[in-house]
Amino acid sequence: MTQPPPRPVRTVSVVGIGSGDPDQITLQAIDTLRRSDVVFVPEKGAGKAELAQVRQAICARFAGDRPLRTVAYAVPARRDTGDYGSAVADWHTGLAATFTRLLREELGDGERGAFLVWGDPAFYDSTIRVLNRVEAAGEIALAFDVVPGIGSVQALAAKHRIPLAEIGGSILITTGRRLAAGAADVAGTAGAETVVVMLDRGDGLRAVDPDHEVFWGACLGTADERLVAGRVGDVIDTIARERQACRDAHGWVMDVFVLKKPRTP
Amino acid sequence: MTQPPPRPVRTVSVVGIGSGDPDQITLQAIDTLRRSDVVFVPEKGAGKAELAQVRQAICARFAGDRPLRTVAYAVPARRDTGDYGSAVADWHTGLAATFTRLLREELGDGERGAFLVWGDPAFYDSTIRVLNRVEAAGEIALAFDVVPGIGSVQALAAKHRIPLAEIGGSILITTGRRLAAGAADVAGTAGAETVVVMLDRGDGLRAVDPDHEVFWGACLGTADERLVAGRVGDVIDTIARERQACRDAHGWVMDVFVLKKPRTP
Ligand SMILES: C[S@@+](CC[C@H](N)C(=O)[O-])C[C@H]1O[C@@H](n2cnc3c(N)ncnc32)[C@H](O)[C@@H]1O
Ligand SMILES: C[S@@+](CC[C@H](N)C(=O)[O-])C[C@H]1O[C@@H](n2cnc3c(N)ncnc32)[C@H](O)[C@@H]1O
Repeated sequence: MTQPPPRPVRTVSVVGIGSGDPDQITLQAIDTLRRSDVVFVPEKGAGKAELAQVRQAICARFAGDRPLRTVAYAVPARRDTGDYGSAVADWHTGLAATFTRLLREELGDGERGAFLVWGDPAFYDSTIRVLNRVEAAGEIALAFDVVPGIGSVQALAAKHRIPLAEIGGSILITTGRRLAAGAADVAGTAGAETVVVMLDRGDGLRAVDPDHEVFWGACLGTADERLVAGRVGDVIDTIARERQACRDAHGWVMDVFVLKKPRTP
Repeated sequence: MTQPPPRPVRTVSVVGIGSGDPDQITLQAIDTLRRSDVVFVPEKGAGKAELAQVRQAICARFAGDRPLRTVAYAVPARRDTGDYGSAVADWHTGLAATFTRLLREELGDGERGAFLVWGDPAFYDSTIRVLNRVEAAGEIALAFDVVPGIGSVQALAAKHRIPLAEIGGSILITTGRRLAAGAADVAGTAGAETVVVMLDRGDGLRAVDPDHEVFWGACLGTADERLVAGRVGDVIDTIARERQACRDAHGWVMDVFVLKKPRTP
């Protein structure tokens, strides 16, 4: 009887690094980086340009005594045709294969790897999902943990100095796509006093009752940060202008906003 | 003509300190504490026992060279009778008076104060709201900023290693009270794939379709942390037991949970 080859044992952390300001990193994240041998960084796709700047600042400051190898990996492109759900599933299958290869080849037994993630890994990021797939596939004996980070939603609320939760109220966090499809109306039905919108393409606000109050921010935590607040109908053009200005100054733009229901007079 | 007496100028920060684990503090929060002269800490009410432990650890580690005075303030009790909204409004009026007195008497011109807040100040915390009132009242020329912190929702997701957002999906963050009143059904209507429940009194899960998946955590970040995951119908009794065990071991219990819709077979 031949034994099956032993599965390689691999240890990695998914580390949230905040959403732009390197000072928003936690001690737990720094400590995890100090104990890491390799940092995995996506080479393409959403997050590339943003990550590059903050990652450099962070790795330079917090690498610790051990040399920290950086391994960039290509993110496969997501199919834009056909069914959205199956396109994402295929994309994750591709990413899982990439992660498996990275873990096998770029990390040794007894070493520790870290995937740096923009903001908080729980919000609109696939790293955890893909590692769960790798773990379930069972080719690698994978031990992984997650280090939370300050997400863009929190960074926005802090900069505007607003609470997200109204007293005893609910918060709906959604996407620009859903907003355009009527999420704000639905939020009214669902009794959510606060709606937070991420992943907008720049036109989500057009779908909103202009009497809503909006708290908007772009390029948060960077030198090109922009903040606008007011009645949607009054500030929607300012926001479009500032969004463009941010893109021009910064090279990329990501924005996020909070909507509060019109106060009943 | 006599000049009105100049308004005192006061500078404070609202600092999120994470939800239990002192290592979840950010560099920005540490830096703010280092530059502070006075830390304001609530003496009573929600957050007292929890804050006391973490605050001690944090102030001891991060006070910096300057002496850091701690000023405890009594939180007025909230009326439990009559209309909820007006009870909260009265409570805030009382707190605003307390804050105004603290800022006038316990902080000097040129000094910096810090209000330490559990988790992230944007989630179910009144400190920002009350400072907005103080600012609006205009008796004090108030400059305040907000430092985000790791909230319990993120801490929970990290420990369970789950994404909160399904791909392109929405998240409803709500309270135990709203859940009991049917928020999970409404979330279904609103198309929120994920429901997060805070401020539960221990019975919110009874109102939920037992086929939901739940990811539950109590006393997160402390030595008495408890985690349970599974189908609601299968784990609801375990959760009740663990919740009680956590209270017994720890002296207090706060819990938070995530619900995911039953997967369609
Ligand atoms: C792929 S998601 C990643 C979110 C990230 N995990 C987080 O917690 O913020 C990207 C979206 O996050 C928001 N975002 C991230 N960083 C931002 C920043 N610095 N300023 C404004 N919005 C940001 C935008 O809504 C953007 O479309
Ligand atoms: C008054 S709210 C404050 C929330 C805080 N600002 C935050 O961001 O987590 C208190 C609620 O937060 C949740 N919570 C706070 N800390 C927690 C912990 N360490 N473990 C579990 N739940 C916690 C519970 O749902 C609790 O009822």
